Amino acid sequence: MLKISILTIGDEICIGQIVNTNARFIAEKCTAIGCDVLFHSSIKDDKEIIKSDLDRLLKLTDLVLITGGLGPTSDDITKPALCEYFDDILVKNQDVFDSISKFFAKRGLKMIERNAEQALLPSKCKVIANHFGTAPGMLFESNGKYVISMPGIPIEMKNMLESYVLGFLKDLIELKGEDVVAFKVLQTIGVAESILAEKIGDPVDFIENGTLAFLPSYKGVKLRIGFGAKDFNAANQRIEKVESYIKSKVGEYIFAYSDDLSLNEVISSLLIERKKTIAVAESCTGGLLAANFTDVPGSSKYFLGGIVAYSNEAKTKLVKVDSDLIKQHGAVSKQVAESLAKNVKQIFKYDFGIGITGIAGPSGGSSEKPVGTVWIALSDGKNSYSQKFFLGEKRAIIRERALVKALEMLYKKLLNS
Amino acid sequence: MLKISILTIGDEICIGQIVNTNARFIAEKCTAIGCDVLFHSSIKDDKEIIKSDLDRLLKLTDLVLITGGLGPTSDDITKPALCEYFDDILVKNQDVFDSISKFFAKRGLKMIERNAEQALLPSKCKVIANHFGTAPGMLFESNGKYVISMPGIPIEMKNMLESYVLGFLKDLIELKGEDVVAFKVLQTIGVAESILAEKIGDPVDFIENGTLAFLPSYKGVKLRIGFGAKDFNAANQRIEKVESYIKSKVGEYIFAYSDDLSLNEVISSLLIERKKTIAVAESCTGGLLAANFTDVPGSSKYFLGGIVAYSNEAKTKLVKVDSDLIKQHGAVSKQVAESLAKNVKQIFKYDFGIGITGIAGPSGGSSEKPVGTVWIALSDGKNSYSQKFFLGEKRAIIRERALVKALEMLYKKLLNS
Repeated sequence: MLKISILTIGDEICIGQIVNTNARFIAEKCTAIGCDVLFHSSIKDDKEIIKSDLDRLLKLTDLVLITGGLGPTSDDITKPALCEYFDDILVKNQDVFDSISKFFAKRGLKMIERNAEQALLPSKCKVIANHFGTAPGMLFESNGKYVISMPGIPIEMKNMLESYVLGFLKDLIELKGEDVVAFKVLQTIGVAESILAEKIGDPVDFIENGTLAFLPSYKGVKLRIGFGAKDFNAANQRIEKVESYIKSKVGEYIFAYSDDLSLNEVISSLLIERKKTIAVAESCTGGLLAANFTDVPGSSKYFLGGIVAYSNEAKTKLVKVDSDLIKQHGAVSKQVAESLAKNVKQIFKYDFGIGITGIAGPSGGSSEKPVGTVWIALSDGKNSYSQKFFLGEKRAIIRERALVKALEMLYKKLLNS
Repeated sequence: MLKISILTIGDEICIGQIVNTNARFIAEKCTAIGCDVLFHSSIKDDKEIIKSDLDRLLKLTDLVLITGGLGPTSDDITKPALCEYFDDILVKNQDVFDSISKFFAKRGLKMIERNAEQALLPSKCKVIANHFGTAPGMLFESNGKYVISMPGIPIEMKNMLESYVLGFLKDLIELKGEDVVAFKVLQTIGVAESILAEKIGDPVDFIENGTLAFLPSYKGVKLRIGFGAKDFNAANQRIEKVESYIKSKVGEYIFAYSDDLSLNEVISSLLIERKKTIAVAESCTGGLLAANFTDVPGSSKYFLGGIVAYSNEAKTKLVKVDSDLIKQHGAVSKQVAESLAKNVKQIFKYDFGIGITGIAGPSGGSSEKPVGTVWIALSDGKNSYSQKFFLGEKRAIIRERALVKALEMLYKKLLNS
């Protein structure tokens, strides 16, 4: 396999100011075409550290993909570091200069000196076009190993990766006749990691020269099968056998045989397939469930609207919840959740209604109903199904988990209807 | 300064299946107490790689913080790797065994062998309690350097970091009499990175032995000032001088003098301070704006409800948009955006109303109104302010950017009202 590493340059990553989403994106795309991504390294905008870490990664892997430190400001020093590492000089690249000029002209902006300097590039590198910004990418070759430097701004990096770098990597893999590795992810809900492991048994008994990983989160446990082989066909055949075995053991918990599908998207397909529509009335999740449904392209086929009823007044006025019900049982109660679900279904005249009401905190909790108490109800017009949950103590987590629980309830209902 | 590195163990990070949010969290917390986080490294669940990368990082830094690979399944091998690296043996820890037993008893679950094995721990380590799961943390000391191993599940890691590890690090910094480094972030909106750099001038002219970084994203450009000193007081004094200088140059674009505050939270404070309330009617953002407002604790003071009017029917029925208006101008138009804003304000009787309507794609675009076209309107009852945007081609990005643009419009309105 083509061994690669990802080197992210930028103080903002090191000090934890931002999450390194670039590394994940690059790793996912490169893994999918058969690269073995061995190392992710994040370092500061420090010339000596850049040179020494690049040197280390070039010894350990065939190719290093760099992002970051190519901006027009003085803290960006990836280009001079590469120039020193490859013992090179900067020369003006007329094509890049013209394209930067065009970039500014198109936007009606004045091009300033520090932007023009971005057209100064190491003489030994192949320049990679940046279609979304002014910092070009660079490709260096040295003793049969490669270094590719891309900008750190996600949209620029992503475009450069997809429009040029991945094609270059594919060609290299073919040229070198490298092995590939294939992965498959099965997603489960409603079951703990240790129970899954127990039911599936010891991987040694049914996997040879492959891997099975358990990836737990509050959204459920994912199972990832991996096999290496001469080509994707051979690897996938070995994956299929293991997949069948796992399915026979824990198939009832699996909602997707791919990592590309979210529970949200599985539900979307089920709703479209069954020609069902859904409306939501949300209190503590405050629009998250609606935003989640509308996140899926084509969601207008089954989700046409929702009401965020954050205050009691919004609950009574917009979702017609009886104010006596709120007085008698409290806003966070089985009765109010079911009323929200039933009424919002009727208002929109859809097939299902979901009502969510809870205490997301940090205030509003009591000993009887502590922060984290959430009632979720699902109505199909005839019946209401409701459940009470305790979803932790932190506002953001409570809201996220309430969303997942509502989706789980809807998924189960759709499977059985 | 206490030099530390973060070592994340797990194939799922290397192959890009998940984003490494743990590393960011750890880096942010450790930076805040004065650590110099020099390296983030993510590697596979491979015993030899774990040992060699740990060795490298221990040579480069004073302390290595490890996460991941402590689960109960066979792919988790951090513990045996550490055991080998420190030439140690596993022994049963009765306290941990009891706490794991209690963990299962409390949840009414059966404790199985692979969970019990989590109580087997290296004899040389100090055990760190895990209050949210079954895998304990481990602290090793070796030749004046330290290794701390924590679970990879975010909630378990976060609790362990905050309840024990940060305190340990603070004590160590004091014990060693290390320097600290302080950072301050100024957040801007409505201005490009290169223009900011031009207005501010060359940092060499006003910063000595410190750093100024420009961090651009679609949410605006952040400016990060950094200074090292004997203590936080001294470092902060130097930061203050630079901050005043920058404020005098580009103060008009700065909406927050901290990285802890989002634009959303700044708006929240402004709304509360001015005793203003807001209602939203969203089409293409489908609940994102409502979810965003309700994400802030205390948002019930100014945000009491909203309507997700995804379909034309929801727009006319729930937000009372004139259906002729939609016929005449299309659902994505200045007129419909303004009607959504004005009507939702009236329905809720709040001070402001925001209406968003756009084409998030992938379908629904035309040559006249391509995917990415979004109209956003803000109504204060008397007047409506509306703006047309082109926010890219990808659904998720269009939605996110529409959210930011709506917040920007509201922020400017609040500043001037």
